Parts: sequence; C-alpha cells; structure tokens
Amino acid sequence: MFEKLTLIGIGLIGSSIARAVKLKGLAKTIAITTRKSATLEEARALGLGDSYTLDAAEAVEGADLVILCTPVGVYAEVMQQISGHLAPGAILSDVGSVKGQVMKALEPMVPAGVHFIPGHPIAGTEHSGPSAGFPDLFVGRWCVLTPKPEVDAVAVDRLVSFWGALGSNVEVMDAAHHDLVLAITSHVPHLIAYNIVGTVADLEAATQSEVIKFSASGFRDFTRIAASDPVMWRDVFLTNREAVLEMLGRFLEDLSSLQRMVRVGDGEGMQALFTRTRAIRRSIITAGQETAAPDFGRPHGTPEAAVVPPTDVSPVMVREHGGGEDA
Amino acid sequence: MFEKLTLIGIGLIGSSIARAVKLKGLAKTIAITTRKSATLEEARALGLGDSYTLDAAEAVEGADLVILCTPVGVYAEVMQQISGHLAPGAILSDVGSVKGQVMKALEPMVPAGVHFIPGHPIAGTEHSGPSAGFPDLFVGRWCVLTPKPEVDAVAVDRLVSFWGALGSNVEVMDAAHHDLVLAITSHVPHLIAYNIVGTVADLEAATQSEVIKFSASGFRDFTRIAASDPVMWRDVFLTNREAVLEMLGRFLEDLSSLQRMVRVGDGEGMQALFTRTRAIRRSIITAGQETAAPDFGRPHGTPEAAVVPPTDVSPVMVREHGGGEDA
Repeated sequence: MFEKLTLIGIGLIGSSIARAVKLKGLAKTIAITTRKSATLEEARALGLGDSYTLDAAEAVEGADLVILCTPVGVYAEVMQQISGHLAPGAILSDVGSVKGQVMKALEPMVPAGVHFIPGHPIAGTEHSGPSAGFPDLFVGRWCVLTPKPEVDAVAVDRLVSFWGALGSNVEVMDAAHHDLVLAITSHVPHLIAYNIVGTVADLEAATQSEVIKFSASGFRDFTRIAASDPVMWRDVFLTNREAVLEMLGRFLEDLSSLQRMVRVGDGEGMQALFTRTRAIRRSIITAGQETAAPDFGRPHGTPEAAVVPPTDVSPVMVREHGGGEDA
Repeated sequence: MFEKLTLIGIGLIGSSIARAVKLKGLAKTIAITTRKSATLEEARALGLGDSYTLDAAEAVEGADLVILCTPVGVYAEVMQQISGHLAPGAILSDVGSVKGQVMKALEPMVPAGVHFIPGHPIAGTEHSGPSAGFPDLFVGRWCVLTPKPEVDAVAVDRLVSFWGALGSNVEVMDAAHHDLVLAITSHVPHLIAYNIVGTVADLEAATQSEVIKFSASGFRDFTRIAASDPVMWRDVFLTNREAVLEMLGRFLEDLSSLQRMVRVGDGEGMQALFTRTRAIRRSIITAGQETAAPDFGRPHGTPEAAVVPPTDVSPVMVREHGGGEDA
C-alpha cells in the first residue's frame, strides 16, 4: 500500500501501527525515528521497523507516508527538522488527540505538494512506550481524519484505506468539531480522573491506604485513565483549552445540581438521573465500543485478583478504629 | 458453619452469597425472601435457596444468620416485619454501602439477644438482580464489619470466619470511619460518573451519538459504574450525605485548581499532578485489588470489540461537518 512508512515517535500508538503494518504488509519498509536513543534502541530490540535513526530529517527521506506519533507539544520542533526533507506527494499525518490548534501551528510549515491529513485513532491503553503496543489495538475502533477541504481527495482516500486495513472505521470531520467531541469524550474524563486520583493522593497516609484496599468499590475504575502518559496529556490540555473549559463548565453546572440533590435529599431527582445514565452504557455496548462482560471482564476469584491470602486460609482480620462512634 | 441462613433481598450481592454458601456448604439451609414476587420466582428458578417466601417474618424464623441484602432505604420497613421473629442468639447483618445512619436507625429495633453486626462486602459489578450474582464475587475483596464495641466478640468472630470462607479479607472498624473512607472510595466516584454520563445524556442527539462512537477514548470507563442500580445508589446518597458532601468538597477544590491550570496553561503543574497519580494505580495493583492487564483486560481485536464491520471489508467512511474551519 505504501513504499516507505516513517513513524516519528514509537510509543503505544506508533509501535502498534508498526506491528500492524508489518503483520498486514501495508508498507515495504518502516523507518523509525525518536528523540531519545533509549527509546530507539528499545524499538530496534523489538524489531518494530527496518531502519532506525535519531535524525528525523533522514528518516522521512523518500517516505510516502509520515506519521507523527509524538506528544503534540513537540510537533512544531519536529516539523522544523523534517519540512525540508519531505518527499513531494507524501502524505503527512499524525495521531494526536487535539487537531485544531495543532493544524494551525503546522500548516504554514507543510511544503507545497505534501498532503497534510491530520488523524486521531480513538484507541489506546493506559500503558506507554514501544513495548506497550500491539497490532490489534485499532480493530473495531474509530479513526478520525481532519483534512482541510482543499486537500487532495485521492490522498485522503489512501489514508482512509490505510486505517481501514488496520481494522479501524474511519470518519472524516473538521478539526473544530473533533476537538469539541473529544473534549467531552476523552479530555474531560481524563481531567476528572486525574483530579479524583489527585484528591486521594492528598489524603493523609492512613486514609489513603484504606482507599487503596477498598478501591474495588468504584475508585479503581478512575485510576486506569489517570495512569496515562503525563506528557501527552499535559499537551492535550495545553492545546485544547477552550473546548475542555467549555465541556468542563457543563460538567460542573450539572455537578452543582447533583450536589444540591444530595444536600436537600432529593431522592426522586437522583433516581431519575441514575436511571437515565444506564441507557448510555447500553448504547456504547450496542455500538461495539465496549464489552458487555460485567466489570469490563476483569478477573474474579483468580490468583490475579487475590494476592492477599484467599478463602480457606484464616482471613486477615484487623481491628482498628474501634473507638465505637456510631455516626 | 450455620444452621439456617436467611437472605432478605436476592440481587447481585444476595445471590452471590447464596451461590458461594451453597458451593462451600456454609449453611445447612438457605431461606430467601424478597418484596417482589417476580424476583422471588427468579431466585427459585435459579435454585439459589432451599425455601422461598414473600413473608420476611416467616423467613427469619429459626435462622442463626440473617443478612439484609436490600437497598438500605427499605431496612427500617424490613426490620419492623422481622424484629419480633428473630431467634435469640442470631446474628443480624447486612451488606449496605452506608453504615452510620443505618445503624442509628436500626439499633433501637434490634431485640436483646440478637447480635447486630453490620457488614459491607467491597465487591460488585454494574449488573443487578438474582441472575447477576456469581460465587467468586468476594474472592480477594475486602469485607468491612462495623459492630459496636459492646457486641459479643464470639459472634463477630463467627461472621469474620463466614466472610473469610467466602474468600474475603475482613476488617473491623467503626461505622463513621467506614462511611468517610467509602465516600471517597466509592460514593463520590459513583456521583461523578453518574454526573458526567448525565452531561452526555443532555447533549444534542448528533453530538451524543459521536460521544458513543468515540467513547473508547476515556468516557466509556465512567459508564460502567454509572450503570449501577439506581435505587441502591439513591439510598446511598440519602443516607451518607455528610461524608459525601465533605469528600465532594475536597474534589471540587482540587478541580478548581486544575481548571485554573488549564486556563492559564500551567503545563508544569499538570505534568506534576499527572505523574503523581500513576503511583496510586500501581499501589492498587500491588495490593491485589486491580488487574495489571492493560485496559482492565478488555478484549481487543475480537468480534466482541468489533460489532461494526472489521478490517478487510471496506471501511465505514462518513464525510460530515466538512465546513472546514480549522480551529
């Protein structure tokens, strides 16, 4: 499908693309370039590509598909290195979670004859680095492309086919719309998850250790996305500020209303809200974007779920806080 | 271990207890009682107990262990029915997520000679009803008991052993402390999850359908606990109001600070917070309360994850919002 694919950055997403492209034979060669030599050596040891270099300009020479897979905060720096070396007719894309501001910053640096088609595969895990990737990451997930309307339709179709071959469904939309939808779908959820995990991190040590013990009651669900790559997420909030603040504003308005329901004891209001929210999850399962298995399919009753001594052994019993207040 | 166990209410938790008790032979007979006859018939069809009745008073006759497994909002009503029928020496317990206010309300109704030992197994899934239960639900999870200090130690030890036999680790603490820890571990996370899913439910239909499509970017994690039983959770917020408002207050203070970081573009502050939160997840995994598998072990690249047409088939391509603004 392509002669030479260059991946700039080889973390979770970049390394998953490399694995899938190799598996499906979508490019004759894969060139990998990173800023850090340790990351490059890790990629080499994993055999993710065909050539490896710390020199991004060298990596893009002769490539007909170049994908930026770094945090969005370093795009401008990377573009300065590569823009004079991109082949005419090449497709230049990326995988960043923010599109509008990034496009504004990069477009002036894209040489004439290069097709700039920003992209965002809606897929990931909380793990990062070259070894975190796997070739099935994009299967059944959506990939959004946000080319300007004047971009060559043939080039767009090629990139659509590329993501389709990786297993994704592809949707083309404008950047501003992407950023607003992702603000509520992804950015505000991450912000909230980081925040509540931060609130726990600030609790006194004794309480914090109890929160960890009893986290299966809800809290641990939030810790997964709050374990995502800190630099990537810093850059998301730095570059999609307006949409994030807009959606966070809506969330906070609603939370004030729910807080009031709790304060005044409005049971009817709460029950109505809690009933309505069930339907959203059902829609997501029906859309094939979530597993129907209880508890995300987490293991129950397995050694993994029970590091602490299980069942017939005498139970761990701790008496503490036995002061005996009853309220 | 017990002659007769009576389960009042047979949803996710009650039916999981029934299954585990039967499997491990922890009681000679299990009596099941519910308010709704449909639920009782479902339990009977599943063979969860040895006797079934809509009459709670009849169900507790001669039982040496009675566990309330209904939403906490109906405890008082149930206690009025059963208090005159509890056997002397019986242990009366429950599985509710709130302890302080519930104990205050119930204690005056507990007959002398009955050992009242409130309990809370920290386990569950987002599913509810008799068919949602499974016997391994409690393995490796914590169960908190909150007896008053004057309660018979032998009875407490019996209940500790019972939960230990179900696979749980047991901790005894006072009710007020339980309620504060669970407010941040469980109640506020549920409140926040219900809230953000509610915010999405209020979006215009077009945007909402996109949130559902792109939910794998973070949002869907929240929908699991926001799909929990609405009545149970209504009752939690009605009965643990003060601790919930206290912990919600801390969360909101922190969120104001984070919101400001986004607004002023404080990248360093964000990165520092996002790095700190990773450690909390690692602690939870080390404590055996979470799976180390990426993405909770969700399926990737399987038919379940891809209801929409996969890979080699031509990708779904939708062009919309092609207006072409770039911010």
